[in-house]
Amino acid sequence: MKTILLCIDTEVERAREQAASLTALPLETDQVRVVIYHVFRGDDGADAEKLKSVSEATERLEAAGFTVEIDQSSGDAVRNILEMADEIDADVISLAGRKRSPTGKALFGSVTQDVSLKSKRPVLLSTTE
Amino acid sequence: MKTILLCIDTEVERAREQAASLTALPLETDQVRVVIYHVFRGDDGADAEKLKSVSEATERLEAAGFTVEIDQSSGDAVRNILEMADEIDADVISLAGRKRSPTGKALFGSVTQDVSLKSKRPVLLSTTE
Repeated sequence: MKTILLCIDTEVERAREQAASLTALPLETDQVRVVIYHVFRGDDGADAEKLKSVSEATERLEAAGFTVEIDQSSGDAVRNILEMADEIDADVISLAGRKRSPTGKALFGSVTQDVSLKSKRPVLLSTTE
Repeated sequence: MKTILLCIDTEVERAREQAASLTALPLETDQVRVVIYHVFRGDDGADAEKLKSVSEATERLEAAGFTVEIDQSSGDAVRNILEMADEIDADVISLAGRKRSPTGKALFGSVTQDVSLKSKRPVLLSTTE
């Protein structure tokens, strides 16, 4: 069984792209556990399962045959994602990779860039404008 | 059939990590064509098949059951990789993701960063120190 850590924020479009980057691959879905992970900034009792981005990704991945779990934490996104990847021994970390600055220049988000640079695990970057 | 564009340079260790990032996934290997691609700086008649990095990646991927093709070009790496990805309609672009600067700071290579930012296709980043 392989584990993919899918780190999603609150942007529905990015969550869809991340789900699509997995469903586009010819993965043996019965051999893959996807852990959808959201890091809240503050610990205010919010529930990741109620986020539209999380439910969209979950629906699409389950429809494609993946086993999906949802997990959450609060605090520093980069540190928490790296810790979670170690904890579940993720084979791949899925991140949303791009956004445009107001001047139109393509940029990585800082969380995406930091996790990609700091983790030794393969990172699957899916991209949106 | 899905197509993965595996862009490798002359570093054997990075090529191994890129092959490992694919063999670590539960991919239906008979559904995947891997195109190993190397961009030479100059057009001096060099042959990508003779590069140690290319032969290492080829051996590992074929041993894992993937169909592997080798292609090459010369000139601007970023532009050529983006064009090749379009030409073969790559489902994923595999890139080597990291190196350390002399001060120990983690960095993306510029080709990796530019391709990741400029392509709309998912990018699989594998990392080495």
